Amino acid sequence: MNPILVEVTRGDLVESRHRGAVAIADASGKLVWSCGDVERPIYPRSAVKMLQALTLVESGAADAFGLGEEELALACASHSGEAFHVEAVRAWLGRIGLDEDALACGAPVGADGRPLTRAHHNCSGKHTGFLTDARHLGVETQGYERPDHPVQRRVLAAMAEMAGVDPAHMPVAVDGCTAPAVALPLRALATAVARIADTSCLAPDRAAAARRLDAAVKAKPLYVAGTGRACTALIQAGAGAVSAKTGAEGVFVAAVSSLGIGVALKVDDGATRGAETAIAAVLAALGAVDLHEASVRALSRAPVLDSAGCVVGGRSFSPRLAARLRRVRSTR
Amino acid sequence: MNPILVEVTRGDLVESRHRGAVAIADASGKLVWSCGDVERPIYPRSAVKMLQALTLVESGAADAFGLGEEELALACASHSGEAFHVEAVRAWLGRIGLDEDALACGAPVGADGRPLTRAHHNCSGKHTGFLTDARHLGVETQGYERPDHPVQRRVLAAMAEMAGVDPAHMPVAVDGCTAPAVALPLRALATAVARIADTSCLAPDRAAAARRLDAAVKAKPLYVAGTGRACTALIQAGAGAVSAKTGAEGVFVAAVSSLGIGVALKVDDGATRGAETAIAAVLAALGAVDLHEASVRALSRAPVLDSAGCVVGGRSFSPRLAARLRRVRSTR
Repeated sequence: MNPILVEVTRGDLVESRHRGAVAIADASGKLVWSCGDVERPIYPRSAVKMLQALTLVESGAADAFGLGEEELALACASHSGEAFHVEAVRAWLGRIGLDEDALACGAPVGADGRPLTRAHHNCSGKHTGFLTDARHLGVETQGYERPDHPVQRRVLAAMAEMAGVDPAHMPVAVDGCTAPAVALPLRALATAVARIADTSCLAPDRAAAARRLDAAVKAKPLYVAGTGRACTALIQAGAGAVSAKTGAEGVFVAAVSSLGIGVALKVDDGATRGAETAIAAVLAALGAVDLHEASVRALSRAPVLDSAGCVVGGRSFSPRLAARLRRVRSTR
Repeated sequence: MNPILVEVTRGDLVESRHRGAVAIADASGKLVWSCGDVERPIYPRSAVKMLQALTLVESGAADAFGLGEEELALACASHSGEAFHVEAVRAWLGRIGLDEDALACGAPVGADGRPLTRAHHNCSGKHTGFLTDARHLGVETQGYERPDHPVQRRVLAAMAEMAGVDPAHMPVAVDGCTAPAVALPLRALATAVARIADTSCLAPDRAAAARRLDAAVKAKPLYVAGTGRACTALIQAGAGAVSAKTGAEGVFVAAVSSLGIGVALKVDDGATRGAETAIAAVLAALGAVDLHEASVRALSRAPVLDSAGCVVGGRSFSPRLAARLRRVRSTR
């Protein structure tokens, strides 16, 4: 039974509660801290995008097509489809001789119900990264999203290596964007993310790729998510020490280079508000972001407002777990 | 620890899970069936709107202002702000000599980001009901949403009577629409709802009011929620036997007149998808709605699709709990 990570109050009572698990590991795979079941496989969903982009750099594709920090950040992104995201993805597709029709991620529907284009899909940067790798390898681009395509086989192998798991024991389902969705225990996910924060035990090419992606994410946080988004706020608040990435269904990871650790958490019920509250509070307890920063506080201690704008409740991370986490900080 | 009510799968694994509690009571207050903690107070939120509307009928206000089924259904509604909802609320406000400025519920923002008017607020019918009662009682309309206003004092007393609880032990917080949000144990909430399904133990005026509201909800299900909404689908599928109403943060209630029972459930984490899946499955297991009906199945066994429209997972109610519930049906 996973512990309660986040409570949502109204008046004097707890109205809703989010259970979940948190794993913090170092690059050796050692669990630095955890709560809940960190051995059960979970789907990290988009929280593995930095891992999925490693081969794009390692293969030489990023250099061959002259990708800069904006493109690499987009390859690791779940972006909001703002104009600057869409324009950058379209320009990148043009550079590899393709257009939006090549994207397998489908076209989303806008908030106003109008159909958008495929470049607006939050995963369009990841998909363009896959296509770039396929172009560079000289393989068929059609079907690039299938698990048996050469690009995905390399991506899955890199993820398994980073996580320290046998790829034969890594379940693969289908993500919302039609690309493979692997399952990993939170402990293994935290380890993989720690190896982005601390590349000392990686092979030189892998280490260079991890550092380059990490630098791109930190340099272009708006390209990783967008205006007002949690990932963007946490990367900015981390001031060069944090690469944070959300995944659907209540997942969040963060590579904390100042501590050489990876954080991975999953809220059991899949709630985004639970995951955002928890990751902000965990990073604050670790000293990786400043809880006094308004954007961090807005995530970790968000008020519940009524329609007149009055505070009628709030959400917060478990004080007991936060106290335990603060002790981790003093040992690193 | 509440049991898992609903699981969401992806590929071969459970991706997310929703815990919660379910209470089924009869009009005497006897618990017919339950799972999880049904004694802890929860906020039913909008799931008590039929109870909040009782005094509107009992006071004579509904007759004095010639309210029909559409207005009474709107008083019990969390509507979608479709044109027919908004027009009906505006016409009703005109009939009591007021306009939208009198509504304390605030104006929502549309999906496209444009500001809407107060009549669009999902609670505008409930608020217009309160105002109608205030007009009929000849009291100040200003402040009608405050717990100490004569209208709210009567509403809170009626709710406490229906639920069989001491109003002094009924915590009151503020709802999203600024009106009072009471807290009730699920068992008491189910009892109150059962007394709408079976009015035999109520005083004559209260019984008549409950029957009239129940009839209005069943006659005008589109006014209770809207196109494609869960409440509307369940009331329609119930074919005259079910009045169903959702509440924010994972609550659902249903008065099942064919069985003389009230169902009340709360998903711990507040997820709407969990509550909708659970109420549809519970009502199907009780035989109150037909699981073969597409709209019911879409709620109780909703598939998870990728962006290409392929089924990559699904959500479903606990088979173990459904089997236990089917036995309740045979005893009624």
